[in-house]
Amino acid sequence: MPLPFATNMRLKLPILAIGLELAMIILFGIFVEYDKDQDIGHQPNRTRHDNRFLALYPLFQDVHVMIFVGFGFLMTFLKKYGFSSVGFNLLIAALGLQWGTLMQGLWHSEGRKFHIDILTLINADFSTASVLISFGAVLGKTSPVQMLVMAIMEITVFASNEHLVAEKLQAQDTGASMIIHAFGAYFGLAVAIVLYRPNLEREPENKASVYHSDLFAMIGTIFLWMFWPSFNSAIAEEGESQYRAIVNTYLALAACVLAAYALSSLVDQRGKLDMVHIQNATLAGGVAVGTCADINIHPFGAMLIGSIAGIVSVLGFKFLTPIFASKLRIQDTCGVHNLHGLPGIIGGLASIVAVAMGATDRTTVAMQAAALGSSLGTAIAGGLLTGLILKIPIWGQPPDQNCYDDVVYWEVPGVEEYHDHTLKHDDHTLEHNDQDEE
Amino acid sequence: MPLPFATNMRLKLPILAIGLELAMIILFGIFVEYDKDQDIGHQPNRTRHDNRFLALYPLFQDVHVMIFVGFGFLMTFLKKYGFSSVGFNLLIAALGLQWGTLMQGLWHSEGRKFHIDILTLINADFSTASVLISFGAVLGKTSPVQMLVMAIMEITVFASNEHLVAEKLQAQDTGASMIIHAFGAYFGLAVAIVLYRPNLEREPENKASVYHSDLFAMIGTIFLWMFWPSFNSAIAEEGESQYRAIVNTYLALAACVLAAYALSSLVDQRGKLDMVHIQNATLAGGVAVGTCADINIHPFGAMLIGSIAGIVSVLGFKFLTPIFASKLRIQDTCGVHNLHGLPGIIGGLASIVAVAMGATDRTTVAMQAAALGSSLGTAIAGGLLTGLILKIPIWGQPPDQNCYDDVVYWEVPGVEEYHDHTLKHDDHTLEHNDQDEE
Amino acid sequence: MPLPFATNMRLKLPILAIGLELAMIILFGIFVEYDKDQDIGHQPNRTRHDNRFLALYPLFQDVHVMIFVGFGFLMTFLKKYGFSSVGFNLLIAALGLQWGTLMQGLWHSEGRKFHIDILTLINADFSTASVLISFGAVLGKTSPVQMLVMAIMEITVFASNEHLVAEKLQAQDTGASMIIHAFGAYFGLAVAIVLYRPNLEREPENKASVYHSDLFAMIGTIFLWMFWPSFNSAIAEEGESQYRAIVNTYLALAACVLAAYALSSLVDQRGKLDMVHIQNATLAGGVAVGTCADINIHPFGAMLIGSIAGIVSVLGFKFLTPIFASKLRIQDTCGVHNLHGLPGIIGGLASIVAVAMGATDRTTVAMQAAALGSSLGTAIAGGLLTGLILKIPIWGQPPDQNCYDDVVYWEVPGVEEYHDHTLKHDDHTLEHNDQDEE
Repeated sequence: MPLPFATNMRLKLPILAIGLELAMIILFGIFVEYDKDQDIGHQPNRTRHDNRFLALYPLFQDVHVMIFVGFGFLMTFLKKYGFSSVGFNLLIAALGLQWGTLMQGLWHSEGRKFHIDILTLINADFSTASVLISFGAVLGKTSPVQMLVMAIMEITVFASNEHLVAEKLQAQDTGASMIIHAFGAYFGLAVAIVLYRPNLEREPENKASVYHSDLFAMIGTIFLWMFWPSFNSAIAEEGESQYRAIVNTYLALAACVLAAYALSSLVDQRGKLDMVHIQNATLAGGVAVGTCADINIHPFGAMLIGSIAGIVSVLGFKFLTPIFASKLRIQDTCGVHNLHGLPGIIGGLASIVAVAMGATDRTTVAMQAAALGSSLGTAIAGGLLTGLILKIPIWGQPPDQNCYDDVVYWEVPGVEEYHDHTLKHDDHTLEHNDQDEE
Repeated sequence: MPLPFATNMRLKLPILAIGLELAMIILFGIFVEYDKDQDIGHQPNRTRHDNRFLALYPLFQDVHVMIFVGFGFLMTFLKKYGFSSVGFNLLIAALGLQWGTLMQGLWHSEGRKFHIDILTLINADFSTASVLISFGAVLGKTSPVQMLVMAIMEITVFASNEHLVAEKLQAQDTGASMIIHAFGAYFGLAVAIVLYRPNLEREPENKASVYHSDLFAMIGTIFLWMFWPSFNSAIAEEGESQYRAIVNTYLALAACVLAAYALSSLVDQRGKLDMVHIQNATLAGGVAVGTCADINIHPFGAMLIGSIAGIVSVLGFKFLTPIFASKLRIQDTCGVHNLHGLPGIIGGLASIVAVAMGATDRTTVAMQAAALGSSLGTAIAGGLLTGLILKIPIWGQPPDQNCYDDVVYWEVPGVEEYHDHTLKHDDHTLEHNDQDEE
Repeated sequence: MPLPFATNMRLKLPILAIGLELAMIILFGIFVEYDKDQDIGHQPNRTRHDNRFLALYPLFQDVHVMIFVGFGFLMTFLKKYGFSSVGFNLLIAALGLQWGTLMQGLWHSEGRKFHIDILTLINADFSTASVLISFGAVLGKTSPVQMLVMAIMEITVFASNEHLVAEKLQAQDTGASMIIHAFGAYFGLAVAIVLYRPNLEREPENKASVYHSDLFAMIGTIFLWMFWPSFNSAIAEEGESQYRAIVNTYLALAACVLAAYALSSLVDQRGKLDMVHIQNATLAGGVAVGTCADINIHPFGAMLIGSIAGIVSVLGFKFLTPIFASKLRIQDTCGVHNLHGLPGIIGGLASIVAVAMGATDRTTVAMQAAALGSSLGTAIAGGLLTGLILKIPIWGQPPDQNCYDDVVYWEVPGVEEYHDHTLKHDDHTLEHNDQDEE
């Protein structure tokens, strides 16, 4: 009764999810084949370790953990939105990796049938990552139906930009600072600006963490932090390039942690650390070192990039996010601008500096700049368009007073029982306190 | 004082655990040797990557994570049974993998000394998985002593059935839909029917989740979901078979998620998602695709199997489980019938269809059907027998009023202090509320 | 106002963290180079799997998970110190692995430039592990500034002892029972004795767990337990040695679990299990089997060592820890003496027995005994010296009444709001209850 629209979810979500899955099955039936490459096959004089796909499989699984545990739990910091954070993350990603496989495969095969292998699975996870970053910008204010629509839209634009940057421009972006992180962040911010809600400007009580929700979020942070070297190296060229991508990312992240802790304490008047900074800014080094990860930037260069990213990220949370919300009408729930947007741009700029200094001859300053421009441009254009589509009032967007609250979409233990036993109570506060105490 | 039997645990658990461990040490001393295969050995012109065991090791560790984190945390959804869920899961599995190593090794060596290698460790984890599935059916109503007895019984039957299916029938069950999942589920259900307690029919207050216990359970779900491709491919033949097992499982799981979300919303009158469905039914695709995982069923075939499993699993939770409890006297705490039982049967049937359609010539329709029948038959017979043994009133089974409550077996923070300070209070409700609020 | 010193953190932590990171960047610039070994390089007739570093990478990532998730979450058992446990663990480790890389590299290169590769990253994680063990001994009673100082001090001593044991004495300690576990434990205990605080003898209310904090700690336990075979085998010689290290550790841990559960129940008057034992003593087998892990001690030998370690560890928690606190003025917060100290010594002694019995000829009884003596001696001496430095009252050590409480260093949700709304309340108990209930 207080949630009239919720009833409609009963038809919207099932119809859309089943419809999309049917479409995926049909499209996979038409376009997708197993890899038959003899390299994978069973050959008489090769032993098990000789099949190349098992060599990439551990890197794939690390990336997989980042997508599902990393992104999923990182967003559980909200006190009443944990089910949606980790649950919708799974839903969006499950759709995203199917659609990403198709989009990237079709671009590559120019519309013909194509094969999938472990590298395909990694790339599908990557395309999904961009959607999950954008999800962070609108977390708590959008319905799962909207997010499924966004996943389809965003991955379509993502695959086009990725094709342009990697194939046409031949730019370098091994760790994807530009094409995933900056792209995902600005796409999400563009969606957020279209979906702006003035009533949420005075931050609702639910848009906060509790003690244990912050610990759940740290599960996400730590898994992202640990496996980021795999993310940045998974599609690097084998040998020295891949090795450098791992080492540079490892060092950038270590340096970033010290910078993030230092700044978090420094910007607080009592010198106290802020969980928001620790959960997010400690990861900025992994984002920022991405584009240059496999280039010879020297170990200390990676550490410098990581330190700068950590500092910029904390400053962004402290000073930019409030301005974005109040002046630019951008309500960035998870602060993806500070974790993915700014560090992604730093990554692109760092690659321009590195190329200008002669660290690699596989690309040029102009191509790197074009790649950054293309990623930002397509992200913002695609995000604004997607935002307009999501604004059509048919996707079950939650009303202002139900934002950041699982109870809109989930059976929440404690809450419903309460309803059943005392139907006369409509008081939401009471109901929620009930939930909190458990 | 309210727990007279608990005192007895002080002797029962230590004597049984130490006795079993001593027996294991003696049996390992008699039967188990290191692998001396020259393939593993240090050979002059081979480099580190050339030893075959390291190639399987990452797959083994993924399976290991599923057993200990996956199963362990999946069962922490109960509000007051988290210590037991993750703790007894560890205890049962630690015994199970030792006993599983022995049982499978002795069948294979026909009673002589045998070697262990990484493949042995994977198979030991597999035999343990069947026990942990059965544990889910009786969770909250059995003592750790009973579970140790069940582990010994079940793995003995499991190894016999596995030997029959794989060696005698030469049936295919790479991902073990039949020999692990269906077997474990029906074994557990058979135990549950023997241990039926009429007083638990009106669901006790403790048999429910709270907000954060559902999030802990999602840790289990996500790790199971991510690493399921490793589970289904770990013992597949190297090369194309193993590659297909990974890709098919990955796609079946992705499709399953969309189907499970759609159905969960559809079967609720207000369209709300149910955490029980999301925690469990999203995994049904991994179970159901298991038997066919390494066969050429086409990518879209894997997605179809996954979707069907997701749908059937949610319908099982919604409509079958209540009937099981009320009419069949089967109280299936975790709903293992919906996650492992039905999808396991779907897996067996799918393999029959695939073989009939000519997808593989390594097995026949008759052998697959015999494998399914054998797995179900031995599971039910073994489970009934085990249930009768567990019903003997010497294993410290908790009384009805203490089911689903850690306080029977664990020092629970808050609860005991309360006791000490206010010995006059025998009121259990108060004591438990205390625990909840922390 | 009740935390006058906290304000000072605003300068101390940023200055120290930024200063140390700058020093690291400069030192890495001077000394550290990428590995240029042609083995890693891209060679025409080699395929991806042929580069040796990818073979070690999965083992490295397992160790990485142990350091950041394992140690980090294991210490979240305290009800109000979860942010600090997992957060400072990350901070200390991020510094430790940079400093460890330098210290170990410089010893090895004798002060010249040196290369880093995946093995270097593993060793850096190892040196960090020793600091995190010591952190457990002083958890809740020290500031992050003190811990950064300790990390620098301890790793310096650690690297010297490791160089002495491995290079000079040529002793065997593959799984590092002596040089990491015993070293880290006794270093931490020596620091704890110097930092002894009589007012904490009557255990403060905050030095306890709540229900969900114990579950968070189990995340740490389980990840440590699962990946310990990787820890003990990561630097073992390839082939049979590495294989044995994995199998022995796996079996020792399985046996240890049964022993730990048995003893935990046995030492409680009502036979109830204690979460402290389960979280810690189940891991003692991994520590104790470390030194002998790659030696031919037979599978049953590994299980014996594991069982003994589990028993000793529980007995240590039950009987030694209280005596340490009351008689020896050693307040060992996490009981690292029982998890790392005693089992580490058992590991060293087991290696002496194994060598005496002729299990290996790569070392001698005398060298193993010298290695154990050196590890204990340098740990205690280094710990006492470090304790004296940390006692200088400039590092922001928390006052007695704020020990084991995140609120000293962190913005804790709920607590600050409370302050803002009701500035007249200075009552800490109220404030904390507030935090608990969320």
